[in-house]
Amino acid sequence: MLLTSPRRARLAAELLGTALLLAAVVGSGVMAQRLTHDVALQLLVNAVATVAVLGVLISSLGPISGAHFNPAVTLAQAVRGAHRWSDVGPYVLVQLVGGVGGTVLANLMFGLPAVTWSHHERTGPALWLGEVVATGGLVLAIALVREGGDRASVVVPAWILGAYFFTSSTSFANPAVTVARAFSDTFAGISPRCVPAFIVAQGVGAAVAVLVLRLFAAAPTHEKERP
Amino acid sequence: MLLTSPRRARLAAELLGTALLLAAVVGSGVMAQRLTHDVALQLLVNAVATVAVLGVLISSLGPISGAHFNPAVTLAQAVRGAHRWSDVGPYVLVQLVGGVGGTVLANLMFGLPAVTWSHHERTGPALWLGEVVATGGLVLAIALVREGGDRASVVVPAWILGAYFFTSSTSFANPAVTVARAFSDTFAGISPRCVPAFIVAQGVGAAVAVLVLRLFAAAPTHEKERP
Amino acid sequence: MLLTSPRRARLAAELLGTALLLAAVVGSGVMAQRLTHDVALQLLVNAVATVAVLGVLISSLGPISGAHFNPAVTLAQAVRGAHRWSDVGPYVLVQLVGGVGGTVLANLMFGLPAVTWSHHERTGPALWLGEVVATGGLVLAIALVREGGDRASVVVPAWILGAYFFTSSTSFANPAVTVARAFSDTFAGISPRCVPAFIVAQGVGAAVAVLVLRLFAAAPTHEKERP
Amino acid sequence: MLLTSPRRARLAAELLGTALLLAAVVGSGVMAQRLTHDVALQLLVNAVATVAVLGVLISSLGPISGAHFNPAVTLAQAVRGAHRWSDVGPYVLVQLVGGVGGTVLANLMFGLPAVTWSHHERTGPALWLGEVVATGGLVLAIALVREGGDRASVVVPAWILGAYFFTSSTSFANPAVTVARAFSDTFAGISPRCVPAFIVAQGVGAAVAVLVLRLFAAAPTHEKERP
Repeated sequence: MLLTSPRRARLAAELLGTALLLAAVVGSGVMAQRLTHDVALQLLVNAVATVAVLGVLISSLGPISGAHFNPAVTLAQAVRGAHRWSDVGPYVLVQLVGGVGGTVLANLMFGLPAVTWSHHERTGPALWLGEVVATGGLVLAIALVREGGDRASVVVPAWILGAYFFTSSTSFANPAVTVARAFSDTFAGISPRCVPAFIVAQGVGAAVAVLVLRLFAAAPTHEKERP
Repeated sequence: MLLTSPRRARLAAELLGTALLLAAVVGSGVMAQRLTHDVALQLLVNAVATVAVLGVLISSLGPISGAHFNPAVTLAQAVRGAHRWSDVGPYVLVQLVGGVGGTVLANLMFGLPAVTWSHHERTGPALWLGEVVATGGLVLAIALVREGGDRASVVVPAWILGAYFFTSSTSFANPAVTVARAFSDTFAGISPRCVPAFIVAQGVGAAVAVLVLRLFAAAPTHEKERP
Repeated sequence: MLLTSPRRARLAAELLGTALLLAAVVGSGVMAQRLTHDVALQLLVNAVATVAVLGVLISSLGPISGAHFNPAVTLAQAVRGAHRWSDVGPYVLVQLVGGVGGTVLANLMFGLPAVTWSHHERTGPALWLGEVVATGGLVLAIALVREGGDRASVVVPAWILGAYFFTSSTSFANPAVTVARAFSDTFAGISPRCVPAFIVAQGVGAAVAVLVLRLFAAAPTHEKERP
Repeated sequence: MLLTSPRRARLAAELLGTALLLAAVVGSGVMAQRLTHDVALQLLVNAVATVAVLGVLISSLGPISGAHFNPAVTLAQAVRGAHRWSDVGPYVLVQLVGGVGGTVLANLMFGLPAVTWSHHERTGPALWLGEVVATGGLVLAIALVREGGDRASVVVPAWILGAYFFTSSTSFANPAVTVARAFSDTFAGISPRCVPAFIVAQGVGAAVAVLVLRLFAAAPTHEKERP
C-alpha cells in the first residue's frame, strides 16, 4: 500500500509529531491560565507538559523520521550532511502543516474557535538574542548527543525545559512552532507580525551552532575523562 | 502451589498495579486539596504523584503482566496481535476490581468513608475530544516504544504527565481508572453519569491509534536518522 | 589499612548515605518553610530535594553497600535471602547513628541548635495505614527491580516521590528516618511519642510485601509482554 | 587546523559549557523574579532550569572535556589521578572566563547592563557549612559514579537539584560559578566580598570528599547487593 512507503511514513511521523507537540504547547498554556494567576506556575505547567510530550514523541517517532519537528533542525542536519537534501522541503512543509493542525486541535479541545490570531507581542533585541541562544544550544546538543542512541529523547526536552526559563524569549527555538503559535490568542501565542524576526534569530542561532560544531569535529572522544 | 501459576501471577500483578495506581491518583488528589488553594499546584501535585507511581509500577510489574492496568491498552494490544485474546476478559475484570479497591484504600488512608459517589461533572464535546487525544496518544506511544525494553516505564508516565495539562479532560485515558474515580467524591472524582461518554471517547482514541499505527507498520527503522 | 576492609566500607557507606539522606529531608524542610507559606509548595520542595539526593546516594553507594539506608529494607532483604544476616545488626546500628547525625548536620547548616525535639504530632489509624502502604510498596519495588542493575536509583526515588503525596503520612517508610526526624523541631519533624507506632506500621508493611512477593516468585518473566 | 587540536577542543568545551551553565543560572534567576513573588517558586524555577541545562551540557560536552565546568572538580580529579596536572591551570582559566561571559550573556538577554556588581550578602558559618556539604557531596558523587558511563549526566544535576534546597547556601559548590555570579545584581547574585569565604568552604568540602573516597577505594563492588 502506498501509504506505508518509508518516505510517506517519515513524513507522516513528522506531521503527527509536530501536531502533537503544538497541541501540548498551546493546550497546556490554555490550561495553565485557567488554573492559576501565578505566572511562574503557568509557565512551569506549560514547560513541563511540553517537554514531557516532546520526550514521548522523540522516543516514539525518532526511529521512523528522526523526530525533528523543527525546520531549523532539519536544515542544520542537512548542512552537516546528516539529513538528505531531497527530504528538506517535504519535511519543512509537513512540519508547518502539522504545527498549525496541532494548534487548531488544542483550540478545539478547550472549546475555543479553531483559529484566533494571537495579540501577544514578543519583540526586541533582548528576546531575539534569547532565540539565538535557545536555537543554537538546541542544534548543538542534538548534533553532539546523536551518536548516543536514545539520549536525544532526554537531552532535547531537558534543553527546552531549561531554555523556557533562562532565555528571555521562553525558547520558541523552532520556526514551525513559531508560525503555529500565531494561530491561537492564548498564553503560548505570538503576534503574527513578531514571527519573522523570531525565525531570523532562530536561523542565526542554528548557523552559529553549525560553526561551533566544527571546533569539536576533530576532537577525539575522551571516554576516560567523562566525569 | 496454585497461587503461583504464571497466569495467576499475571492477574495478581494487574490487580495490584491498578489498585496502587488508583490509590496514587485519588490519594494525591485528596492531599493536594488539603495542602493548597492554588488549583494549578493541586493538579501538579496530583500529576507528579500519579506518574511517579505509574513509572514504579511499570518497572516492577511490567516483566510479569505487561503492566497494562488499562482495558483500552489490553484491548488495543489484543487487536494488534500483541496480547492473548483469552487473557482480555480476566485482565479487564481484575483491572476494574483493582481500581475500585485502590480508590477505597485511598479514601481510608485519608480517614474518609470507604466509598462516596463523586459529584464532579466532567462532560461535553471539548472534554471528550481531550479523552480521544489522551488515549490515542497513549496507545500509540506504548506500541511504538515497546520494542525498546525498559523505555515504557519512562515514556508512558511522561505521556500521562503531559496529557494531564494539555488535554482539556486532564487525561483519564483509561476505562478502569474512569470507573474507579467515580467512587470518591474528592479532587480526582468523576460523576458516575459522566463515565460512559468518557469510556466511549477512550475507545475512539484507541481505535484511531490502531489505524495510525498501520501507517508506520511498514516503515523501516532509520537508526541513522535518530537525532 | 583496616579502615578499608570491605565490611567497614559497607558500613561507612550506610552511615554516610543515611546521614546525607536525613540532611536532605530535614534541611530542605527548613528551607521550604523559610521560602513560602504555601504548604503544597513546601512539601513539593521537601519531596523533590529528598528524592534527588536519594537517587544520587543509591547511584553512588549502591555498588558498595546496597544502599539500603533503611532498617526495614535491610530486614526484608535478609528474610528474602538477599542480605547476610550477620550484617543486619551492624547495618541497622549505623543507619540509626547516621540518620541522627544527618539531622544534626541539617540543624547546624541552618543555624539552629544541634538538637531540638519535634512537637509535630503525626498519629492515628489513617496515617498508620499510610505507612503500611508506603513501606510495603517500597519493599515490593526494591525486590522486583533489583535484577535490573541501575534501575533502583530511579525506581526507589520515584516511589518515595509519589508516596510523599498519595499516602496520608507523607511516607516516612523507614524506621531510621523516623527516629532521626524526631531530633529536629522543624517541618519534617515527628514527635518522639509518635515514633513507635510509625515503626510498627512500617514493619507490617514490609511483612505484607514479603508475602506478596511469594505470589510473584514463580512467575516467569514475560519480556514479550512488557509494554 | 589549529583550532581543532584535541586540547583546544577540550578548552573550548569547558569555556562554552561554563558559559551556558552561568547563562542558565543567572538568566533563570532573572526570569523567576519577573514571574512571581513566591520565593520558593523563584528558587524552584531557578533550580530546575539550572539542572536541566547542566544535564544537557554534561551529556553533550562530557565526551570532549570531561564536563567539569568547576575548578574544585578539576583540582580534586587531578589530586585523585583522574585528570592531567598540565590541564589544571588552563581548565580553571577558561572556566572563570566562560563563567563571567555566561553571566554577561544572561544580563544582555534580559535587557540589563552587561555587568552590575551584586549586593546580595551571603555569609556566616551556617552558609559556609552548607558550601562544605554541597561541594563535598558533588566531588564524592562524581568520583563514585564516573565508572558508570553516562550516569554523571543524571547524577550531578540530581545532586545540585537536591542541594539547592537542602543546603543553607543554595549550593554554589563551584568557585567559577561563585565568581561569575558576583557580576549580576539579580536573584542569583553574590556580593563580591562574600566570594572568598565561599571558595574556601568549597575547597574544604572537596578536600573532605577526597579523604572519604579513600575509605571506599579498596571496597570491592557488590553488584549482587545493589538494591
